Amino acid sequence: LRRRFPEFDYCYYGDTANVPYGTKSPAQVVKLSRACAQALCAEQVDAVVVACNTASALALSAIREELGTIPVLGVLEPGVEASVQALAGAAGDSPVLVLATRATVKSGAYGRALRDRGVHEVWEQPCPLLVPLIEEDWNEHPVLTLTLDEYVRAARERWAVRGAVGDSGTAVALLGCTHYPWIYDAFVRALPGWNVVNSAEAVADAIARISPDLMARAQALGAGSRGKVLWLFSDPDAVPAFATKWIQAQSH
Amino acid sequence: LRRRFPEFDYCYYGDTANVPYGTKSPAQVVKLSRACAQALCAEQVDAVVVACNTASALALSAIREELGTIPVLGVLEPGVEASVQALAGAAGDSPVLVLATRATVKSGAYGRALRDRGVHEVWEQPCPLLVPLIEEDWNEHPVLTLTLDEYVRAARERWAVRGAVGDSGTAVALLGCTHYPWIYDAFVRALPGWNVVNSAEAVADAIARISPDLMARAQALGAGSRGKVLWLFSDPDAVPAFATKWIQAQSH
Repeated sequence: LRRRFPEFDYCYYGDTANVPYGTKSPAQVVKLSRACAQALCAEQVDAVVVACNTASALALSAIREELGTIPVLGVLEPGVEASVQALAGAAGDSPVLVLATRATVKSGAYGRALRDRGVHEVWEQPCPLLVPLIEEDWNEHPVLTLTLDEYVRAARERWAVRGAVGDSGTAVALLGCTHYPWIYDAFVRALPGWNVVNSAEAVADAIARISPDLMARAQALGAGSRGKVLWLFSDPDAVPAFATKWIQAQSH
Repeated sequence: LRRRFPEFDYCYYGDTANVPYGTKSPAQVVKLSRACAQALCAEQVDAVVVACNTASALALSAIREELGTIPVLGVLEPGVEASVQALAGAAGDSPVLVLATRATVKSGAYGRALRDRGVHEVWEQPCPLLVPLIEEDWNEHPVLTLTLDEYVRAARERWAVRGAVGDSGTAVALLGCTHYPWIYDAFVRALPGWNVVNSAEAVADAIARISPDLMARAQALGAGSRGKVLWLFSDPDAVPAFATKWIQAQSH
C-alpha cells in the first residue's frame, strides 16, 4: 500500500497482546477483531484494511459493524481474485492450493469464495507452525524448509495427487496468511512448477476500487509527497524483534 | 498430582483463549494470570498450583493477591529445589541449563533463585518454538529434533562450553516450561550425559509441604477413593486436538 500510495498517512495496529489468531476459536477471533476495530475508530481513519486472513475469514462483518460508514477491506477477496486471474486459461481441474492458518482453513471461507468463482479443485492446507517460525525469524533455517515440505507433502497426500498436477505451470498456490509473503521464496522452492500468489498487490488494487474518494484525495496530494506511519501495538513490549528491526528500517 | 493424591477432586483451568503466555510481555502475563486466579476463586478450590513457568516467574504475587488465604504454589521453586538436589556432590562449576520460554528467561527468575541456592553456573536458554511444536503434536517429528538441537547448540555456543561439560554426568538441564515434560525423551536424546530434571514430581512434594491441612484430609478420605477432574477452558473451542485426546484417555 505504501509503495502504491506513498502520499497517505497510515496507521498500523498490531494486536501483539493477543496474537496468534490462527489457533483461536471463531468466537474469540470475532471478539478480538472488534476490539481492534474500536482502537482504529479512535484514530479517525478513512479506510481500513484487515491485514489478517483469519480475521478477514471470520470477523469481517463484525469489524464492519464496529466501523460504521468507514470502508473496510478484507484480504480474502483480493486473494481469491488474484488466484482466479492466475488460473485463467488453465484446464478446468487445475487446483488452487490455499495455505493458511488452522482457523482460516476451518472457516472454509476460501473454499466457498473460490468455488463461487468457478474453481472446481480447491485444496485447503492448514500450516499452523509457519507463523511462529516467521515470528522467530527462522526464515532461512532448515527447520522452516522441513516444515513447509511437510505441509506440501500432507496436501498432496490428502488430495492423492502426485506428479501430474503442479508440473503444468497452471496450478496456483495462494498464500492465505499475511505472514507468508515474508517467506515467499521458500514457498516457490517448496512448490516447483506452481504459480505462487501473494494477495498483497491485489489488496492495493482493491482499496482503489472500494474508496474512490480516497484516490481522488491521493491525486490532489500530488506525486512526491510522502505520508507518515503511526505504529500502534496492543502490547508494545511484545513486538517480535524482527518486526522492530523492519519498522526501524522503514522509518528511514 | 493425581498419581500422588488420587483421592482429591481437581479443577484444571486452561487459558486457551490467551495461550501462549511465553511470548507475551510481563504486564500482559500478570493481567491474564489475575483473570485465571479469579476464575479459580469461583470454583472454591482449597489450593492452587500455577502450572505454568511463565506465570510462576512473572505473576506469582499477583495470583496470591487475587486468591487471598488460599495457598498458591508456583512451579519455579520446586524445579529449582529438584535441580539443586540433582547437582548435589557435583563440582562447584557444574552448570544448570534452564530451558524455558522467552518470557521466563527474560524474567531472570530461575537465574536468581538458583544463584540464591549457591549454583554458580546458570545458563538460561529460550526455546520459543517448542510450545507450538508440542501443541501441534509433532513430538516424534524430525522438525522437533532439529529445533531442539538448534537450542542446545545455541546454549553451548553462547556459554562457549563444548565437550567438557555435560560428559561428567553432573550437569543438570531443568525443563522450565510445563509443556516440556511431554517431550522428556527428546530432551534426554538431545542432551546426552546431562541429568534432565522434570519439576512435576517436585511440585507434588511441595504441595504436601505448603498445605498440611490438605494432606490430613487426604488421609481421612482414605486410600482407594478416586476424585474427579473438572476441566475448564477460557476458550473451549480452542483446546488442541492432542490435549482433548489425552483428557478423554484420562477419564477412563
